[in-house]
Amino acid sequence: MVSNEFAIAIMAAGKGTRLKSKHPKVLHEIGGRALLLYVIAAAETAVTPDHIYCIIGHESERVKAAVAATGVKFVLQPEQRGTGHAMQMLKADFELSGAPLPKHLLVLSGDVPLIRPETIAAVRDTHLREHAAMTILTAVPTDPTGYGRVLRANPNKPEVTAIVEQKALTPDQLSAPEINSGIYCFETQALFSKLDALNTNNAHGEFYLTDIAAMLVAERKRVVAVKANNVDEVLGANTIAEMMHLDAAMRLATARNLMAAGVTIFRPETCVIDSAVTIGPDTVIEPYVQLLGSTNIGSDSRIRSYSVIQNCTIGNNVTVLNGCVFDDSSVADNAILGPYARLRPESHIGEGAHIGNFVETKKTTIGKGSKANHLSYLGDAVIGAGVNIGAGTITCNYDGVLKHRTTIGDGAFVGSDSNLVAPINIGAGSYIAAGSSITEDVPDGALALGRSRQTNKPGWVAARKAAKQKA
Amino acid sequence: MVSNEFAIAIMAAGKGTRLKSKHPKVLHEIGGRALLLYVIAAAETAVTPDHIYCIIGHESERVKAAVAATGVKFVLQPEQRGTGHAMQMLKADFELSGAPLPKHLLVLSGDVPLIRPETIAAVRDTHLREHAAMTILTAVPTDPTGYGRVLRANPNKPEVTAIVEQKALTPDQLSAPEINSGIYCFETQALFSKLDALNTNNAHGEFYLTDIAAMLVAERKRVVAVKANNVDEVLGANTIAEMMHLDAAMRLATARNLMAAGVTIFRPETCVIDSAVTIGPDTVIEPYVQLLGSTNIGSDSRIRSYSVIQNCTIGNNVTVLNGCVFDDSSVADNAILGPYARLRPESHIGEGAHIGNFVETKKTTIGKGSKANHLSYLGDAVIGAGVNIGAGTITCNYDGVLKHRTTIGDGAFVGSDSNLVAPINIGAGSYIAAGSSITEDVPDGALALGRSRQTNKPGWVAARKAAKQKA
Amino acid sequence: MVSNEFAIAIMAAGKGTRLKSKHPKVLHEIGGRALLLYVIAAAETAVTPDHIYCIIGHESERVKAAVAATGVKFVLQPEQRGTGHAMQMLKADFELSGAPLPKHLLVLSGDVPLIRPETIAAVRDTHLREHAAMTILTAVPTDPTGYGRVLRANPNKPEVTAIVEQKALTPDQLSAPEINSGIYCFETQALFSKLDALNTNNAHGEFYLTDIAAMLVAERKRVVAVKANNVDEVLGANTIAEMMHLDAAMRLATARNLMAAGVTIFRPETCVIDSAVTIGPDTVIEPYVQLLGSTNIGSDSRIRSYSVIQNCTIGNNVTVLNGCVFDDSSVADNAILGPYARLRPESHIGEGAHIGNFVETKKTTIGKGSKANHLSYLGDAVIGAGVNIGAGTITCNYDGVLKHRTTIGDGAFVGSDSNLVAPINIGAGSYIAAGSSITEDVPDGALALGRSRQTNKPGWVAARKAAKQKA
Repeated sequence: MVSNEFAIAIMAAGKGTRLKSKHPKVLHEIGGRALLLYVIAAAETAVTPDHIYCIIGHESERVKAAVAATGVKFVLQPEQRGTGHAMQMLKADFELSGAPLPKHLLVLSGDVPLIRPETIAAVRDTHLREHAAMTILTAVPTDPTGYGRVLRANPNKPEVTAIVEQKALTPDQLSAPEINSGIYCFETQALFSKLDALNTNNAHGEFYLTDIAAMLVAERKRVVAVKANNVDEVLGANTIAEMMHLDAAMRLATARNLMAAGVTIFRPETCVIDSAVTIGPDTVIEPYVQLLGSTNIGSDSRIRSYSVIQNCTIGNNVTVLNGCVFDDSSVADNAILGPYARLRPESHIGEGAHIGNFVETKKTTIGKGSKANHLSYLGDAVIGAGVNIGAGTITCNYDGVLKHRTTIGDGAFVGSDSNLVAPINIGAGSYIAAGSSITEDVPDGALALGRSRQTNKPGWVAARKAAKQKA
Repeated sequence: MVSNEFAIAIMAAGKGTRLKSKHPKVLHEIGGRALLLYVIAAAETAVTPDHIYCIIGHESERVKAAVAATGVKFVLQPEQRGTGHAMQMLKADFELSGAPLPKHLLVLSGDVPLIRPETIAAVRDTHLREHAAMTILTAVPTDPTGYGRVLRANPNKPEVTAIVEQKALTPDQLSAPEINSGIYCFETQALFSKLDALNTNNAHGEFYLTDIAAMLVAERKRVVAVKANNVDEVLGANTIAEMMHLDAAMRLATARNLMAAGVTIFRPETCVIDSAVTIGPDTVIEPYVQLLGSTNIGSDSRIRSYSVIQNCTIGNNVTVLNGCVFDDSSVADNAILGPYARLRPESHIGEGAHIGNFVETKKTTIGKGSKANHLSYLGDAVIGAGVNIGAGTITCNYDGVLKHRTTIGDGAFVGSDSNLVAPINIGAGSYIAAGSSITEDVPDGALALGRSRQTNKPGWVAARKAAKQKA
Repeated sequence: MVSNEFAIAIMAAGKGTRLKSKHPKVLHEIGGRALLLYVIAAAETAVTPDHIYCIIGHESERVKAAVAATGVKFVLQPEQRGTGHAMQMLKADFELSGAPLPKHLLVLSGDVPLIRPETIAAVRDTHLREHAAMTILTAVPTDPTGYGRVLRANPNKPEVTAIVEQKALTPDQLSAPEINSGIYCFETQALFSKLDALNTNNAHGEFYLTDIAAMLVAERKRVVAVKANNVDEVLGANTIAEMMHLDAAMRLATARNLMAAGVTIFRPETCVIDSAVTIGPDTVIEPYVQLLGSTNIGSDSRIRSYSVIQNCTIGNNVTVLNGCVFDDSSVADNAILGPYARLRPESHIGEGAHIGNFVETKKTTIGKGSKANHLSYLGDAVIGAGVNIGAGTITCNYDGVLKHRTTIGDGAFVGSDSNLVAPINIGAGSYIAAGSSITEDVPDGALALGRSRQTNKPGWVAARKAAKQKA
């Protein structure tokens, strides 16, 4: 698309009263991302960001901040007086800035997030091919009741005769199947020349963009319609229930795409997989798994149920058992983790390493083939290869003021319930006796002990009981 | 409703053979509560409990005990010989007690739990408006096959001509759409005067209450029907599969109500939310969350997946990470918990406090801003503000005979893997060295150590290996 | 079925290109088992394994290895040139071996796993009753578009006139409802005599078994059809999405059967229950539970959400709280486990015992009424009755070279954060002080201590702060 021919306006000023929320509607999230960001991403497939105009109003500063990184432009609609009024604001903005008018203007809704690039292209192409003044994207839902209807003289021809609200439909028109999506393409001049003629003589007292269609038809300008392939992509989210429906539809589409590429996803409708996630073939995703953010998983791995993995890189042939929670970390090939392993950010698990149940890592590197299988906390640590970390091991990385580092050399054996008081170095091939508090460095190959010798007091239990009974 | 005019009888005597269960049918639970309790709750919106008569029979003592707190009356039907027989027992009960007869009698089923107060009111109002001897609640399911059908002379008039069982339907009647719900309102005298005329000439050898309709019609008494808005609310649960269907329907209705009030619930059909739960707007509930009992959650909080919260009060802007399990506890504003935090009863988590992974609390108060982030057990403890509880800390609250209390003053630092042997006081601003067993009180601002000094034995690992090889 | 009259051929040679997987199609798993194993199991209800011929080709050695234990025979189809070609290979195999030809040959698909024994029997019975040369199993899906259609002269008669691919359907035939399942029964001689006449004049250049029907009809041999009761059982899995659909259908059928036998399963469609699992009546399975392998659960137990139990025996009145993960273990009556208890293989939990949160067991026996409620690792241990295992207890079962055993006598009290350095015996009724490292046996009734005495350093915190500020 030649970018000085087209611009895109995105309606993003509304409050979304029916959501009962203090957050602006277009910042509500589905699939882990604000609605408006989906629409901007789709718009960017058609024009460059500097030709995208977000019409903002309610909580405009928050909306602006949330999408500023995309580089789109903003037009303020301080009062929300309808879609026609939004276009009046856009026109005023062009007049004020003196920027050249784009020849055509596509209008999208910031709360219709599933709109696809292919559909935007179809609207544009129809608009150009038909030399239209206005092109309306329509859809044919199972039940059109309640929606504004787009009427054609001949159902097989593109020409539109009217857009009619549900309440204004004649009995004949009640079954008209084609609904108005609220997504349009205009010849900019044709649109802008009519904006001043809009009025607020309607139930909500707003300026309606739909009224432009009648004006153009009255002047025998060409108004045409093009149908979306799929109803979901023109559905807006006026209630939270509707938003949740869109969220589920989007998730399922993601899972289907992955399955088509050779990933086995049991009960795909139960998984929560963000759209940027990549997974190699022959990896198996069990039910109720969540793969979020920019997570990448290799081939032949298996992620078991109830695990939640966010912004992680997972290698090939990795096994993640049930209930693991990983954030911003990496796992190399052939590693086995869980159940209930917790990788906090900057954990790097080496090839073939094992991280077992109730083990937490943070800013920690675990070398090839090392094992920490039970009930441990490893933070701010660099652990070599072939290390055995016993159950209940704790890196005491915080002294109440600062965090300190623990390093453990290759092949070290850290006995159970050891406390490694950082900063500390545990030498390669060394051996820490179970139950030790280690406060000083351990040389390579040394045994380190930091525990008391045991004493037994025979008969103590009976004596205590007797004493208590006497008392 | 004037309570001396109306009484309600609830059929609750059946065994529910098709459930294959030893528990009486009306005590099976959906939505966390026995079926019969839903019906009693709906009945109580129409009359006071002393005008509600539960007809009990199978395991009558268990049923009585389960609902006694509601204050309803009980009528024993020792043998279960049909719905007509149940009314005979009720009549005998009135005769025996000499209690004044209510003018009208509403009959509900103890295993039809989704009946709504509005529908009970509609039956009553129709009954009074139509001056009926018998009013039948009907419904129109997608497929009426198998159900008894209510026939009207004119589909737009309320008058009923007959109730016909599926097997007795003529070919013409097979498509009759309106089914008998088994919920009725009677003029009490009209009903009671016919009970002795019922017979058991039918496939099951039972006295059928439906036969009353034919008797009244034969005498040109007025029998009318009123349709329920929604089929689910007249569905009974004859099998466990049907009961599970009702459970899911009820849960989804609860989630929808919360969403309409501004709560975001992702995949609402996957959450298990009891009907008494309250949640503030802009709180986000992720998929697979369970909120049970009398849980109340504030605004702007987020409950992540797989968490199960029962009978808790959660404040505003609280984050509950994945897989937390909380019972009978409270969490103040801005706290962060989990993943896999376990609050057992009487845990009270202060404002902005952090409870991390694999941490269990029980009868414990955590002060403002205090942190226990890893692998700890805190029981019978009172912990002040600004305290840091290191990884692996354990309050040793049980000596094998009694439980004892631990108190920790504001600003104390408890090093990792500390054992606090209760009863014990850890002073404000004190410092417990990692790996200490603390058996005596620690003064404010003191350092407490209870661990051995470390010794290193250089060359030990190689020596051990050599010794083993020699052996 | 007389086994020398019938044989069964199972088509299992294909690659399954659309799966995008390196594993052969028939080894993909649903319901925890390879597709081909379901088909073999169904075939074994009709004939003995030595009358079952698996036609293998793609990755034939892997397929053979995966099902060898069933005792079926294998016929190699080195190139996959169509279903007719597979039969040519079978014919050649009979000729080579000189084995007597079975009178009839049933042909099943290795990727149509839900085929039921009853349906196989119906095909056979129709085939015999109708004295057919070829009998075709058909089904009537909601939408037959895309499937090959089986045409009959008279819809109420069994005779088939043709099998027609979707593309070859005339406009009249487009709505023909009956699809070809690809499952057939042949008079073996009639089939084998036609195989050489097959050709590859078709879009894929393959030999099609369906062409046999036309040849037989042309010779006025009897070709008949019989409808499957249910479409799912003839559905193949050409894509992973289709396979996942079959998996869900199979799981739900399992859950429904259990509910019909008195098990309460909330949200049955969310549970993953393998077909071999048994559960007693009045046991409650909460949503999102997984019961895998050969797990058996008694009556009156409750399994809470997110628990995953594989190959375990669970007694009566057992409570398994949320998020437990059990493998190859047993739990006796009245025990309470979880949340987040982890039983690794060969754990045996005694009657009424408690295993609490963040506790892991492995090759460990826990006696009647014993408790290990918090944050412990118990491996290679034999623990008596009435034992109390304190929070944070660890059996140090590994010395870096070998695993060793811990035994604990009845009634012992193991204080919190104890390390039991195996091999070791803790006597009956003994008492281990909290925080002890126990390296030597403890006599019955003795107190064992292995920890340092505490020292307090008053004023240390203030002094440290002052020193740091000076530095």
